[in-house]
Amino acid sequence: MCEKSGSSDPLAQSPQDKAALDLDHHHKRVEHVLSPVLNRIYMDYNATTPFDPEVVSVVTEALNEAWGNPSSMYLPGLKAKEIINQSRESVARMVGGKATDIIFTSGGTEANNMVFHSAMEHYWKSSMSSESGREENYHVNGKRIIPHIITSNVEHDSIKLVAEHLVQMGKADVTFLPVSRVTGRVEVEDVMAALRPSTCLVSVMLANNETGVIMPIREICQRVKSAKRSPSSPRILLHTDAAQAIGKIHVDAQELGVDYLTIVGHKFYAPRIGALFANGPGTMTPLYPLLFGGGQERNFRPGTENTAMIAGLGKAAQLVTANLVKDEAHLQDIRIYLEQRLLTVFGKEKLRFNSHFHGTDTLPNTCNVSILGQGLHGRRVLSTCRRLLASVGAACHSDHGDQPSHILLNCGIPYHVAINALRISVGRGTSREDVDIVVEDLRDTVERLEQMN
Amino acid sequence: MCEKSGSSDPLAQSPQDKAALDLDHHHKRVEHVLSPVLNRIYMDYNATTPFDPEVVSVVTEALNEAWGNPSSMYLPGLKAKEIINQSRESVARMVGGKATDIIFTSGGTEANNMVFHSAMEHYWKSSMSSESGREENYHVNGKRIIPHIITSNVEHDSIKLVAEHLVQMGKADVTFLPVSRVTGRVEVEDVMAALRPSTCLVSVMLANNETGVIMPIREICQRVKSAKRSPSSPRILLHTDAAQAIGKIHVDAQELGVDYLTIVGHKFYAPRIGALFANGPGTMTPLYPLLFGGGQERNFRPGTENTAMIAGLGKAAQLVTANLVKDEAHLQDIRIYLEQRLLTVFGKEKLRFNSHFHGTDTLPNTCNVSILGQGLHGRRVLSTCRRLLASVGAACHSDHGDQPSHILLNCGIPYHVAINALRISVGRGTSREDVDIVVEDLRDTVERLEQMN
Repeated sequence: MCEKSGSSDPLAQSPQDKAALDLDHHHKRVEHVLSPVLNRIYMDYNATTPFDPEVVSVVTEALNEAWGNPSSMYLPGLKAKEIINQSRESVARMVGGKATDIIFTSGGTEANNMVFHSAMEHYWKSSMSSESGREENYHVNGKRIIPHIITSNVEHDSIKLVAEHLVQMGKADVTFLPVSRVTGRVEVEDVMAALRPSTCLVSVMLANNETGVIMPIREICQRVKSAKRSPSSPRILLHTDAAQAIGKIHVDAQELGVDYLTIVGHKFYAPRIGALFANGPGTMTPLYPLLFGGGQERNFRPGTENTAMIAGLGKAAQLVTANLVKDEAHLQDIRIYLEQRLLTVFGKEKLRFNSHFHGTDTLPNTCNVSILGQGLHGRRVLSTCRRLLASVGAACHSDHGDQPSHILLNCGIPYHVAINALRISVGRGTSREDVDIVVEDLRDTVERLEQMN
Repeated sequence: MCEKSGSSDPLAQSPQDKAALDLDHHHKRVEHVLSPVLNRIYMDYNATTPFDPEVVSVVTEALNEAWGNPSSMYLPGLKAKEIINQSRESVARMVGGKATDIIFTSGGTEANNMVFHSAMEHYWKSSMSSESGREENYHVNGKRIIPHIITSNVEHDSIKLVAEHLVQMGKADVTFLPVSRVTGRVEVEDVMAALRPSTCLVSVMLANNETGVIMPIREICQRVKSAKRSPSSPRILLHTDAAQAIGKIHVDAQELGVDYLTIVGHKFYAPRIGALFANGPGTMTPLYPLLFGGGQERNFRPGTENTAMIAGLGKAAQLVTANLVKDEAHLQDIRIYLEQRLLTVFGKEKLRFNSHFHGTDTLPNTCNVSILGQGLHGRRVLSTCRRLLASVGAACHSDHGDQPSHILLNCGIPYHVAINALRISVGRGTSREDVDIVVEDLRDTVERLEQMN
């Protein structure tokens, strides 16, 4: 825990101490979940986080007391509406936006899909405008030019598969930019080189879920916005999926310069819903609904609002805003300690840190490491560990058999290294003592596996 | 409460007694919500329901203990997955389906949108098949025949607006069948008369949210399935939005004969999520995802699962299955008592029951009534009432100014009657004593308003 490991924490007397102390009990909760498998230590916070106890309180309270339909004009409805609006303020503050920029969604997958849908709709709506120059450019020799989208080859499936689907349907051309094998990042020059007259969307994640690499979104946005474009070309919309960044590093949509930013609750101790930041949706930034219905979320996302979950998202956002500096320092401290302990125990020659790229910033909490050697495939190591709970990559790929992560391969990690990879992602509640136990567990596991070879 | 009003209830010793007794406390909770407006009585259960206390327990437990990513292969993930699968079984049992027929969604709006999307995709996918006869029919004189959809003119906005959007985009022809002004129902003969060679979907709600009228879905399905169609015509998919029916009347998708059935949690004391029943999705019944992502819900609906809310939906479904006979009898008893009291107090000449249609079955809990007279517009009456909380129609239309419900007008209710309408929908926890208070409140209110005229 940060309190245990950092009693000199300058924020130790902050109003969030109670929450931090509550989080001290987090392991007991994990252990309770895991009975009869006792004493497991969860280090897969990039897959999902437990709920912050304050979030659980808020959700439970709202379940009991704010169950009115937020569209109803009497008090229980108005109370629910007020809670939703307060949460909207909190979520906006967390990402440097205005409350009107926040559209609540069922999660990150929906938010990401909505961005691609909006970009496509906007492209065609613009092309049908009466400006003749524009028409000319969207049609060449009477043939429609389909929209072009730029993304990376290390995106989450909720970007990758949307893009692939558009290609399969012949609805868009997509450039899947390879990340640099040196930096692990999408390089700004590569984005610029990929631009076409028909480019209508650039979507690059803010931080990678497996390597923790932080992408140069601000630079991409600046350069794309300053690119010389024919006046007949469509506007290039700029999106970042900030699922893995929020709660770990400072995230400010205005500073980044994006038009859209995806927010995913369950990565920052909040419920399984999400939100989309859009910079002035419907006015400055086009936003087209995926769903049609009862007019909620200003028609951008209809459906009776999930008040309790939205209340929890708002509370978790408040906690991120209040505690980010402390949390980031704690995560960094623990992750560095973990890497040092691994180096001490296994030695430099036996380890390869897949999250270390020259000159590249990474998430403070993410250690992607391969313990080199025969018979030490990541899945095998993890299934043999007695204490550590971690993963080999994105949870949605957890049943992909004994294949290495395509993300790591795309980052230039050699096959024999990638297949041994462990993604160890620590959280607010992880302590140095946890790290000691986990590294010991890994040492035992590797010893046992090597004896079996 | 049912226990107060029906101590001779044959199910009084059922295992659900505790839940029923817990629900006895429901008014206290409502009153608590409503402080400082004390003593309000909620009769707007068609807008939304409070959470059953057992559902709150299950949700809270899952928030605390089943927060693992259901796609993770270790115990916290597997535990979450197991909870989701148990819920799937419970929801399937509630609507007479198999677990594999249930796709969890963010709510009814998404489920309804998904059905229309699937019907459209299926139409075009079928038309591209190599069967020449089929091709011929989808193209007449080289022109593509767009799909045709049949629905009613009293559907919820999450059907109506989807259909209107498809029409606006030139993607579908839609027949909005007027309901009979005698029965308030969509008539089977009207559906049959509206069928075209290009009809690919019939979507009619199971019960109307404002009048409570139960539509002849079973008959519609039987007749449509037995209709003589050219082999080149597309399959007609059959959908019913059962949002308002579940928990109030017996609902069995197989008995109804539908391909799709929409399930909305917050109408049956469950959280704000939903599900779509599809009869063998992807095999017997086409189902195309609206979203692309991490593969959850067998790719039909990706996105990390909202485990806690799904757990709550499952629990609420169990309660519906266990208590439906008792609940339905209670709702019917209370609603009939309400109507009798209104008749006694106001007299037959001053009332018009907009939910009474000759020979038509209606929901047991829904009383749509107009108190006739100048200055007694529904919104005005409700905003003057001191105890009753009800609505004039669907919550999503609550800000539509002083217009009468278009649903009532479409049912043939005259304008001057429709504008005075009150939709009073009672719930599991409503007692005869509540009815006495509410009717007294309405008598006082009407007296005051009439004196002001």
